[in-house]
Formats: sequence, C-alpha cells, structure tokens
Amino acid sequence: MARSIDTVRTVHDLRTRVAAWREAGETVALVPTMGAIHAGHLSLVTLANSLADRVVTSLFVNPLQFGPREDFHAYPRDEARDAAALSDAGSDLLYAPDAGEMYPPGFSTKVSVSDLTEDLCGASRPNHFDGVATVVTKLLLQCAPDKAIFGEKDYQQLLVIKRFVRDLNIPVEIVGGAIVREADGLALSSRNAYLSPAERTIAPVLHQTICQVADDLAKGRGADDASEAARFKLESEGFRVDYVAVRDPETLKPLHGPVTAARVLAAVHLGKTRLIDNVPVPAR
Amino acid sequence: MARSIDTVRTVHDLRTRVAAWREAGETVALVPTMGAIHAGHLSLVTLANSLADRVVTSLFVNPLQFGPREDFHAYPRDEARDAAALSDAGSDLLYAPDAGEMYPPGFSTKVSVSDLTEDLCGASRPNHFDGVATVVTKLLLQCAPDKAIFGEKDYQQLLVIKRFVRDLNIPVEIVGGAIVREADGLALSSRNAYLSPAERTIAPVLHQTICQVADDLAKGRGADDASEAARFKLESEGFRVDYVAVRDPETLKPLHGPVTAARVLAAVHLGKTRLIDNVPVPAR
Repeated sequence: MARSIDTVRTVHDLRTRVAAWREAGETVALVPTMGAIHAGHLSLVTLANSLADRVVTSLFVNPLQFGPREDFHAYPRDEARDAAALSDAGSDLLYAPDAGEMYPPGFSTKVSVSDLTEDLCGASRPNHFDGVATVVTKLLLQCAPDKAIFGEKDYQQLLVIKRFVRDLNIPVEIVGGAIVREADGLALSSRNAYLSPAERTIAPVLHQTICQVADDLAKGRGADDASEAARFKLESEGFRVDYVAVRDPETLKPLHGPVTAARVLAAVHLGKTRLIDNVPVPAR
Repeated sequence: MARSIDTVRTVHDLRTRVAAWREAGETVALVPTMGAIHAGHLSLVTLANSLADRVVTSLFVNPLQFGPREDFHAYPRDEARDAAALSDAGSDLLYAPDAGEMYPPGFSTKVSVSDLTEDLCGASRPNHFDGVATVVTKLLLQCAPDKAIFGEKDYQQLLVIKRFVRDLNIPVEIVGGAIVREADGLALSSRNAYLSPAERTIAPVLHQTICQVADDLAKGRGADDASEAARFKLESEGFRVDYVAVRDPETLKPLHGPVTAARVLAAVHLGKTRLIDNVPVPAR
C-alpha cells in the first residue's frame, strides 16, 4: 500500500528540510534519479537507508545530459507512481525541482571532467558527462548530504562522479550500488520499457555475453581476443554494438592481453533502444 | 608589530578549524588571495571582519589561471611578510595549500562559465576564467564560509564568480570590496611592483582616463565616442591598450550611445606589465 511521500520542489525548501534533520543530529543520504523508478533505484534507497538516518530521493530529468537526437522528451515520466514506490522503499523526502529551478535564466556554468569521459559512452554521447557532472554538482550542493548513492549500472558515470567530487572538494561520500537484474540477467533500466517483446527476448544476451568475457578473462584469455569474440556474438544475435571493452576498474584505461582485476563494459543498440551493462572481473 | 597568524596547509586542517568555529556558533568569511598582499587585500580582510566572526585568508598562486606566457613563476611570493600583514589586519587563519593539495595526481575537472567570459580580459587571457572558476569553487567548498570577499578591481572576475556560485548552488554569499588606490589614483595591484620608476609615473593616467570616460558619459556623451577618445589618450601616453569598454554593470553587455548605469573597464600594458582598472558610472 503506497504511503504518501513529502515532496519539495525548490532548493530553499529542500535545504530547510535537511537543516531540520541536521539540527536533530541526523545524517542524510541522497539518491539522485531521473524518475521512471524501478527495483534498481529502490535498491539504492534501501542501501541509502542502511547508511544514513534520512534518505532524500531527487527526481529530475536533466535536459543537459541528453543529446539532440536522444530520448529526452520520450523519457518515461510518472511522478505519482514514482513517489509511491519511493515512499514504500523508505525514502523520507522527494525532491522534484522543475527545469526553471535547476537552470534559471542566464544559467551558463559547466562542470566537466577531461579524463574518464573521452571514450566508451563519452564517445557516442558528446556532452553527456558534462551534463551529468553539472547537474550532480548542483544536486549535491543543493542537498548537502553526507552520502550520495549511484548505481553501478552507469559504471563510467560513477567513476566520473567520484572524480569531480574529489577534484572539487565536494564534502560528500559517493557510494556505488550493485546492479539489480531481471531473473534472466537483464540489468534493470528505465529504457527497458522501450523494448518490443521480441527485443526483450534477445536483450539478456547482453549480460550473458559480458559474463562470458569475464569468465574467459578469468581463465587467462586475452582482453582483446575476448572482447572481439563478444562483439561477434552480439552482432550475430542482432545487436548493434557501440562498444565491448575490458578496462581498468578504477581508471578505465584499456587493457590488452591477460588481465587481473578488470571491468567488462558494453553498450549496444537493440532496435531504437540503447542498453548498457557491465560486470567485474575479480583479481586472480 | 606583526603578530603571528595560525597557518594551515591542508583541506583537512582547514575544515577542522572552521568546524570548531561553527560549533561555537561563529560565522566565517573567506578572503581568497594569491599573496603579494597590499592594502587592497587588507581592506577586504577589514570588510570580512565587519561581516563575520572569523576571517580565513587563503594564499595560493593558482597555476590554472595563468597563461603559458604570463607571469606565474615571476609572481611575487613572500609568505612570511604576507602572514604578518594579514594578522595585523585581523585575519584569524591563513590557509596556504601547496599545488599538490589543490591539484592531486589525476586532477581532471574544470568549472567554466560560458557567458561573461568571452571578451574583455577573457579575450586576451584564454582559459583564465576557467582557472579562476575552478580554484574558487574548490576554495569555497574546502572552507565552506558564510561569505567570501573579492575585490572589485577584478570586476569581470567578480561577476563570473557570482554567476557560477549562483548556477552551481554553492551556499555562500559573494561580496565585492571597493578598489583601494594610491594617492595619485593608481589602483593597488600586486603587479604594480613590476613597474619601473618611469612607468610608475605614467600609470595613474589609466585611472584618470577612465574617470574622464565616466564623467563624459554622465554628461551624456556616447559610450563608443568616449571610449574611443580614452583609447587615443592612453595610446598617446605610451600605454598599449588591450581594451577600454563601457558595459552594463551586471551583464557586461556592450553599451553604445548615451548610457545610464554603466561600468567603464580598461586593460592596458605598460612595458611588460598588464594593468586593469574600472570605475562605475552612476545611473543618471
């Protein structure tokens, strides 16, 4: 049964609520989202609740991080449904600003990270990470949480956020939350809603394929060889492959030949839908 | 007689000191400087003391805001002298980080403002305002003051800082401090130390000339006409003129013809030294 969740829409009201918690000695965690809440987001709320006394969830579909041909206008929006789900999951407050509150007239500031962003999703989505870095900087400074939680599904994004938070001395701890998957392995994503029934049947092959890469790497197969085999497999199944990559898990630098610790990351298109996923390769 | 001033060199130590003041209910103002302290800086410390219980002065010669052919290495440095002067002026703490504390290995984040920075000093000093925005964002987030004080001599810089502080929701009030001048009108600047005796004699003509522009504007003379006359005057006195401009005092948009409220801004070279100055034109 959905409880109601308190909702604020301005920086002023958000800060007033957070200040009251601080006054009472409570700690605060922030879970930034673009709405279209699924069990992946809810797992981040659960994690946030285990790390802080109060959990703020933000809901803002950030225009800055969408390219001109991307799905900003089509992105699924249903605040009432999201609010109910977040309340049930234990979020104490929903922060849902409108675009005018986030980007007032004359807005002209950008936060950008030059390292980590050039390739992988940065190559096919120019300006995407600038948009992420700018809005996340704002959300962190608006809310001033002790911790902020981001899903590992957007693994490159998580590293970018950790980088600018360190570089700019934003006083918050960034925590990554594990990927939540469907029973067949498909990583939960708001964009899975775009998949046709036929595409939905094929989609889990993405996860199966990168797990195969991780297994191959663990057995000593070379990184270039394993990722090339994965690309062939995905293309033969009907995916258009943006990248399949084996990278250093901290720096995202490319790895070649046999690896120890690594991250396997992939982005593909299935029809009109872009899907991303990643899995760790444990140190041998 | 110089008192000693407490000095910290790390973000951790700075935050520990500021947290203790907060715990005691005290407010904090930050005065960011690049050292080479003169009476202009000290007036900002005095202003800061009138606005907050505690005053932190930072001293960091920021490499990011110097161009490759500018005077980063030659910039005057004398921390002991600066520390004594700041202590006498009533600063409670000196924060003097080294470059490794500000820009650790892997540093790769930039704060940039697209509006306000394209021309005037931005035209001749590419990347300068990115460097300012990045380091000031860091200093503000490191110290977390209630107010931060910047001199109006760097008028364009002051507007840029106000802009990104608003845009990124940095929770601080930015306060401008009036320009302090020598008896002959020359605006105090750390770079005045570079002037030869002959150049020092000529230098006050910069202030005299932009005051003449302001007078002319107040009498209804057109902005283009008045600034062109000023350029001619400065060049005939031996200055190499970077710009003399009449601008909107808030947006820095160019003004033409008769004006009401405006700011007259100028940048010139005198020998190897770059000098800037500005004066208000009151609304008629």
